[in-house]
Amino acid sequence: MLNNHLVRIQCLDKKGLIARISGVLYENNHNVLIMKEFVEEDSNTFFARIELSGELNTVKLHQELDNVLPKDAIITVHPRQKKKIVILVTKEHHCLTDLLIRHHFNELNAEIQAVIGTYQGLEEICNRLSIPFLLVKHENSSREEFESSLRHQIREYNPDFIVLAKFMRILSPWFVSYYENKIINIHHSFLPAFVGAHPYKQAYNRGVKIIGATAHFVTNTLDDGPIISQKTIEVNHEYELKDMVEAGHEIEKAVLADALKKVLHDQVFVVNNRTVIFD
Amino acid sequence: MLNNHLVRIQCLDKKGLIARISGVLYENNHNVLIMKEFVEEDSNTFFARIELSGELNTVKLHQELDNVLPKDAIITVHPRQKKKIVILVTKEHHCLTDLLIRHHFNELNAEIQAVIGTYQGLEEICNRLSIPFLLVKHENSSREEFESSLRHQIREYNPDFIVLAKFMRILSPWFVSYYENKIINIHHSFLPAFVGAHPYKQAYNRGVKIIGATAHFVTNTLDDGPIISQKTIEVNHEYELKDMVEAGHEIEKAVLADALKKVLHDQVFVVNNRTVIFD
Amino acid sequence: MLNNHLVRIQCLDKKGLIARISGVLYENNHNVLIMKEFVEEDSNTFFARIELSGELNTVKLHQELDNVLPKDAIITVHPRQKKKIVILVTKEHHCLTDLLIRHHFNELNAEIQAVIGTYQGLEEICNRLSIPFLLVKHENSSREEFESSLRHQIREYNPDFIVLAKFMRILSPWFVSYYENKIINIHHSFLPAFVGAHPYKQAYNRGVKIIGATAHFVTNTLDDGPIISQKTIEVNHEYELKDMVEAGHEIEKAVLADALKKVLHDQVFVVNNRTVIFD
Amino acid sequence: MLNNHLVRIQCLDKKGLIARISGVLYENNHNVLIMKEFVEEDSNTFFARIELSGELNTVKLHQELDNVLPKDAIITVHPRQKKKIVILVTKEHHCLTDLLIRHHFNELNAEIQAVIGTYQGLEEICNRLSIPFLLVKHENSSREEFESSLRHQIREYNPDFIVLAKFMRILSPWFVSYYENKIINIHHSFLPAFVGAHPYKQAYNRGVKIIGATAHFVTNTLDDGPIISQKTIEVNHEYELKDMVEAGHEIEKAVLADALKKVLHDQVFVVNNRTVIFD
Repeated sequence: MLNNHLVRIQCLDKKGLIARISGVLYENNHNVLIMKEFVEEDSNTFFARIELSGELNTVKLHQELDNVLPKDAIITVHPRQKKKIVILVTKEHHCLTDLLIRHHFNELNAEIQAVIGTYQGLEEICNRLSIPFLLVKHENSSREEFESSLRHQIREYNPDFIVLAKFMRILSPWFVSYYENKIINIHHSFLPAFVGAHPYKQAYNRGVKIIGATAHFVTNTLDDGPIISQKTIEVNHEYELKDMVEAGHEIEKAVLADALKKVLHDQVFVVNNRTVIFD
Repeated sequence: MLNNHLVRIQCLDKKGLIARISGVLYENNHNVLIMKEFVEEDSNTFFARIELSGELNTVKLHQELDNVLPKDAIITVHPRQKKKIVILVTKEHHCLTDLLIRHHFNELNAEIQAVIGTYQGLEEICNRLSIPFLLVKHENSSREEFESSLRHQIREYNPDFIVLAKFMRILSPWFVSYYENKIINIHHSFLPAFVGAHPYKQAYNRGVKIIGATAHFVTNTLDDGPIISQKTIEVNHEYELKDMVEAGHEIEKAVLADALKKVLHDQVFVVNNRTVIFD
Repeated sequence: MLNNHLVRIQCLDKKGLIARISGVLYENNHNVLIMKEFVEEDSNTFFARIELSGELNTVKLHQELDNVLPKDAIITVHPRQKKKIVILVTKEHHCLTDLLIRHHFNELNAEIQAVIGTYQGLEEICNRLSIPFLLVKHENSSREEFESSLRHQIREYNPDFIVLAKFMRILSPWFVSYYENKIINIHHSFLPAFVGAHPYKQAYNRGVKIIGATAHFVTNTLDDGPIISQKTIEVNHEYELKDMVEAGHEIEKAVLADALKKVLHDQVFVVNNRTVIFD
Repeated sequence: MLNNHLVRIQCLDKKGLIARISGVLYENNHNVLIMKEFVEEDSNTFFARIELSGELNTVKLHQELDNVLPKDAIITVHPRQKKKIVILVTKEHHCLTDLLIRHHFNELNAEIQAVIGTYQGLEEICNRLSIPFLLVKHENSSREEFESSLRHQIREYNPDFIVLAKFMRILSPWFVSYYENKIINIHHSFLPAFVGAHPYKQAYNRGVKIIGATAHFVTNTLDDGPIISQKTIEVNHEYELKDMVEAGHEIEKAVLADALKKVLHDQVFVVNNRTVIFD
């Protein structure tokens, strides 16, 4: 994969975009591994994701695509390589350990630079798996101090993405504004059902027959960012609250892993608070 | 099945209930086909559903159970037989025709007494399948007049259950009060997400990756009655609104059929706005 | 949809195919609604499916594509229109009635020309829905006579596809050879588990926790043709054989409907006994 | 849970079993948390699983149940406590690490006594999580020597269950005979499809649209033991073999975890090569 490159294009749709793009690739003798396009009718937006193999001059290719595409086109050309991520956690381990194990066996397509936790509890497993753990307490701090400290720590790493692996605090607009479409959260319900706190308690009280989990980019509206992945499982009247929580953990980690896989392979585009995902 | 009987019991839980119930059944030499019990811890409620085969004196058995069970126990003993249902519809056919076909081939465990529609469109298929269709228009009527007329028609049939098979009008408390836990509605979303009108439009706008449907008993809070059945399916960015609607129709009819099967076989109990269902 | 056209291309993969195809479309000012391509690496085969809107000269477009594509390319250009189908049945109604109802409400993208049955039982529902029913008995006939008669009847209609909607007889190679990738069968198991007769009995005896159904093109190896669609549902030890059969009917009709939708919209390609399906 | 006890009963069905059992429990003033019964019609076998809370004399309760139950009844009464398990592995980590992490956070209801591997590769992660790893090579050994060595090691631990977490060697009848219904295997396909080696390659070649995994007890017929848990996921033509393998790993570990949870909580009974599982 190290020698592969990735091209991503997003612009208003026009006739002939595929002809122009594929013309550029063909004339330059590029070896297209996978090319996917999609036009979202609602916003009349064209998306393309192209994997190329072999050596290439990224600046030149970018220029050539720029020459034939509309002015509004957002074009990226870069070698395929591992992303850098920082993971934020509170007390629950299941999403974190799922990512740590994948990382340990080189299955994550990302370098985990650090885990930042608000409690000491998850330090031990990070140590065992040789991942730096930083404690940033929110107790006895104002929200501003806490987020400043968080921001300071994260800035050191300059990660491509921040993963909230059951991080149970709401981040302020100030913080989120630094990382547009770069913070991925796992919410423990099938959004938009059960926004906010204690979704399993809400689900239990409502007597639902299905529970779910949702991975989404974080925006400044609570639990309302673009959805990347969702899964559901069936429950029944025999599930007490604790059984729902336990079953929920299984889907939470599956959904977060699925969403991260897509994000880390540059498969996810965002338009109008919705995602376009090339599987 | 005609010779079989069904016993249902619901009461506050106490020690020894199963011993007492099974004692009565054993001493009277009843042949238990299936016996299921459940204690809901949240409300400390005991539920039992028992299928018996062979002749029996329902009054006598009821009395004997009454003698050994707590004063608050709700006990029903009756022969297993087809229920009577009336179906209410608006314009969409898919849930209705699914039920009509099951009925035509004697697979519904119910007698469809009549279909009542607010538009003429579905009369033709009812005629083809020899089911009475009654038109009760709501145009040019007040809500009171409309519901009076509906109530009048339904009273003639005295059905065990009323099925809202994509009936797109909200029924008033006055009407609903006549039929507690007897009206089954299919809502075209995964409740409690997307309560109310146009759930697919809401779902599309929110960019969900899963859509669902919910069958529930109707209460006086919109889309908030006890849930009987829910299913979900995956969607993606390629689904335009019309594709979501089309995919939704498939689960709507599957969920309504599933819920009805459970209700019509006396498998569903209600406690605290939640259902307990013995599969 | 009546003014839309469909282009399908299948050939060995080469560099520049997309550039050439999209070049032809762009130069001729065609309005591409959807274009999907795929390269199957195992067989190095390129597939494309393109929907175009507006008037067009199909002969001219075919010629222009032929000019730029490799010699082995299989190219079809045709207006999008309803297919013609003939349905074969035995005794079970559930797959048939599902298709008849969809057809009745114009949701099938096909004209059902006739239903051919080996028993009288399903004639009544066909009559009710105004679809010709033909009885072709196999009792007191040799297999050759039976299939000759079948072939004779079907030839009158010249259908695009033949649908085996729970047709419980094995068709001989002689018959199948007339309809390569044109006969769609629903098999009542998750193939390749439980090939052949009585799959539910086999599944029950094996104690599986999941049952399924498979829709596939018919080839001359029993239950071994290219798979178009499969679904599964969970079962448990409480399912007796008859419960598995009943639950199975629900997925059988869902899988057949799903497969037909894909086939009837020209979304399915076949290579090496596998299908490539553009959703 | 430490103060809880579990009663399991399996015998030929007779009238009055529930009355007798619940009578014994009631007369002795036991506190029944959960009682589940089931009669398998095919074999006319009665099963019951009862959770009791509070102190109790297990010998006395066993005797009292024995007094009222048929001679053939298999009755067990024991305190609920963690099981002891030994895990066998080859090279793949995903099922093993899933269990190690659950164990590390005390979520497995089992003590992992040791991991036995045929290659060195998985020793490192066992060390990190403080679980003994034993290497038992099969290279340069006869099958008899290898299994003798395995048997010797396992006998030291006297585990309740042996878990084959992607252990890629077939165990001989000699070995299996020591552990009837005590060895749990995860097979990487939806059994009975794709028995034996390379199921993903078989699945890919067959062009299936669904892949699965199966956890089962090991018997002396390859991949034919009683099934405990199965799950499936959808795949499509874009899945190359390696993608199927990768997707398969996710369900393999989910299915093994699900099966183990049921086995370790004494929820699983076996009759006629099928399982009865009280969820």
